[in-house]
Amino acid sequence: MDLNEQAVELHKKLKGKITTKLRGEVNADTLKLFYSPGVGAASKYAQNDQKKLREVSWTNNLVAVISDGSAVLGLGDLGPEGAMPVMEGKSMLFKHFADIDSVPIVLNVHTADEIVETVKRIAPSFGGINLEDIAAPKCFEIEERLKAELDMPIMHDDQHGTAIVTLAALINAMKVVGKNLNDCWVTMSGVGSAGVAIIKLLKLYAPKVQILAVDSRGIIWSGREDLNSTKQGLIDDELIFADAGGGLSDAMKDADVFIGVSLAGLVKPEMVKTMAKDPIIFGLANPVPEIMPDVAKEAGAAIVATGRSDFPNQINNVLGFPGIFRGALDNGVTKITDDHKIAAAKALASLVEKPSVDKIIPSPFDEGVVGAVSNAIR
Amino acid sequence: MDLNEQAVELHKKLKGKITTKLRGEVNADTLKLFYSPGVGAASKYAQNDQKKLREVSWTNNLVAVISDGSAVLGLGDLGPEGAMPVMEGKSMLFKHFADIDSVPIVLNVHTADEIVETVKRIAPSFGGINLEDIAAPKCFEIEERLKAELDMPIMHDDQHGTAIVTLAALINAMKVVGKNLNDCWVTMSGVGSAGVAIIKLLKLYAPKVQILAVDSRGIIWSGREDLNSTKQGLIDDELIFADAGGGLSDAMKDADVFIGVSLAGLVKPEMVKTMAKDPIIFGLANPVPEIMPDVAKEAGAAIVATGRSDFPNQINNVLGFPGIFRGALDNGVTKITDDHKIAAAKALASLVEKPSVDKIIPSPFDEGVVGAVSNAIR
Repeated sequence: MDLNEQAVELHKKLKGKITTKLRGEVNADTLKLFYSPGVGAASKYAQNDQKKLREVSWTNNLVAVISDGSAVLGLGDLGPEGAMPVMEGKSMLFKHFADIDSVPIVLNVHTADEIVETVKRIAPSFGGINLEDIAAPKCFEIEERLKAELDMPIMHDDQHGTAIVTLAALINAMKVVGKNLNDCWVTMSGVGSAGVAIIKLLKLYAPKVQILAVDSRGIIWSGREDLNSTKQGLIDDELIFADAGGGLSDAMKDADVFIGVSLAGLVKPEMVKTMAKDPIIFGLANPVPEIMPDVAKEAGAAIVATGRSDFPNQINNVLGFPGIFRGALDNGVTKITDDHKIAAAKALASLVEKPSVDKIIPSPFDEGVVGAVSNAIR
Repeated sequence: MDLNEQAVELHKKLKGKITTKLRGEVNADTLKLFYSPGVGAASKYAQNDQKKLREVSWTNNLVAVISDGSAVLGLGDLGPEGAMPVMEGKSMLFKHFADIDSVPIVLNVHTADEIVETVKRIAPSFGGINLEDIAAPKCFEIEERLKAELDMPIMHDDQHGTAIVTLAALINAMKVVGKNLNDCWVTMSGVGSAGVAIIKLLKLYAPKVQILAVDSRGIIWSGREDLNSTKQGLIDDELIFADAGGGLSDAMKDADVFIGVSLAGLVKPEMVKTMAKDPIIFGLANPVPEIMPDVAKEAGAAIVATGRSDFPNQINNVLGFPGIFRGALDNGVTKITDDHKIAAAKALASLVEKPSVDKIIPSPFDEGVVGAVSNAIR
């Protein structure tokens, strides 16, 4: 059986990945406290008060993983049913890595207005909201509106989780090659939810870094007339270098760093060979990266990272979201800010004592990951 | 500490009543199957297919307990926060009694249209839906529309759970006093969600039973001009005797059975004394019944039941909903029908081998309750 068949079989065998469990024993003595009539007192205690509700319900430790299934992994629009296994997997990882209770919620509505409205309607049920696998550009508006309108931690993990872990890896990669990110050129391939968030976080961390952004039609620059508002915004906000157009191979010439959240096999060895000295390649397309690590190395890459666990330097969101929400819930943080993201990336990077070519980022199974990240969210 | 203080303290100590748990171990080997990239195969398998999703996700054993908090226990409109402790309690009981995974979802919208719309939007996340503590009369429309529009078991427990357990107790009470329900007069006090459902189920089980229904303004009869459509419907459908008006004391004269889902202390000993021979009193108002058991007995009641665990004959919904959803999920039942309800009531009644004055209904902790009820739902 290949990996895909194994995965389906395991899912069928376990009939899902999470289950519920009781926090106390139900018997004739406790039933009247856990349920009618005693529970009525807990209900009156919590009435119209989210904070008091946290004291007497599981919402103090509960994150909803919410998706409309419009951009599931790299597989596209799989709808709510297709989204569920990924969301349930995320809930599983929340529990395993950070002991956070989490429930997957999939929506069969798809416009930004409907998604915002629905999440707001069910929000009192939860202590935090992890948005997941919602297509760009609507994901940006949805997250922004929900953050403005709800008083609880909300994060679109495809954006910020990816950006935080990528920045952490890049901080250590810079140390290994002896460069300063503020002096570097970065080629960003893929300008969806993750790409945009990475660009913004890199510019926050290193304002002088020069970024060329490339989508399926080439470099995003001021001569393009086919840009959506998000991509145009990158130009207007001077987050990317937008004075010249071209293709991916043009964008990679003399670049210090390539970061791909795009498509399998986009990067050819010849392109790597045109990059600056000691080039850094983060090929994060899943499951097949923009260029395979051995091919990139052979073409001269100094450091290679992917999204995969079977190569060194796995840039994996699971390094981020468990600790981020653990910190937010524990420290009463209701808005995850830019400062939090930078602090989390630095904390993650600092866990690798001596960064090396094959170790620029911790493993999700390394001790201290969740603690370090959660400490940064306060 | 009184019971209410104890309940709040216990809720604070446990910080809620349920938590999540993993169905498998997360490690470097399983992570790639439970999450990216392997999970993508499970997602593609389930795409747009609720049935296949049941095979690979926890939705096969998952019931949402959904409320807008508009009628929490007997406490009125406590809003979504106030509803949560009760809904989480229900999820706890689903797990304890029937090993059903369940998540409480509270809504901060209140019209029938908004509630129906919201539940439909999140429905792909679940395998069944237990509606709870939604005020009458909107609860009737909400349940009807959701049953028509969604392909999964849906039940408003305040209606049907209460009706099923009440009918079960009444079946055995009839045996004890040697009467046939088809020859009886029943006084029904309280015509909200539970009262209406009880009336309908009694008439289904015993079409010739005569029912007088009483709300806060007296007997519901054809001379009243203040009736909402649900109450008027009881008259139009000839479910209640509606030829004469009056108050509760008029309605109880010569009645064989009193069933109250109304208010503490409504029934006076003098009223019991005017009832037919061997009167049966179900005072189900919580936590304080329409008449206390000792007072009712002293006034001549042959059999008394309440909603409380500290008296004999507790008519408790927890005898119903765990088995009903267990049966629906196990047997692929997507509509809970009138036949199911009658069968469940009979199954519950039959668990008491020799009904007696102090034992007309099983205890929730008796063995075989969930099995007997779930067997009736197929």
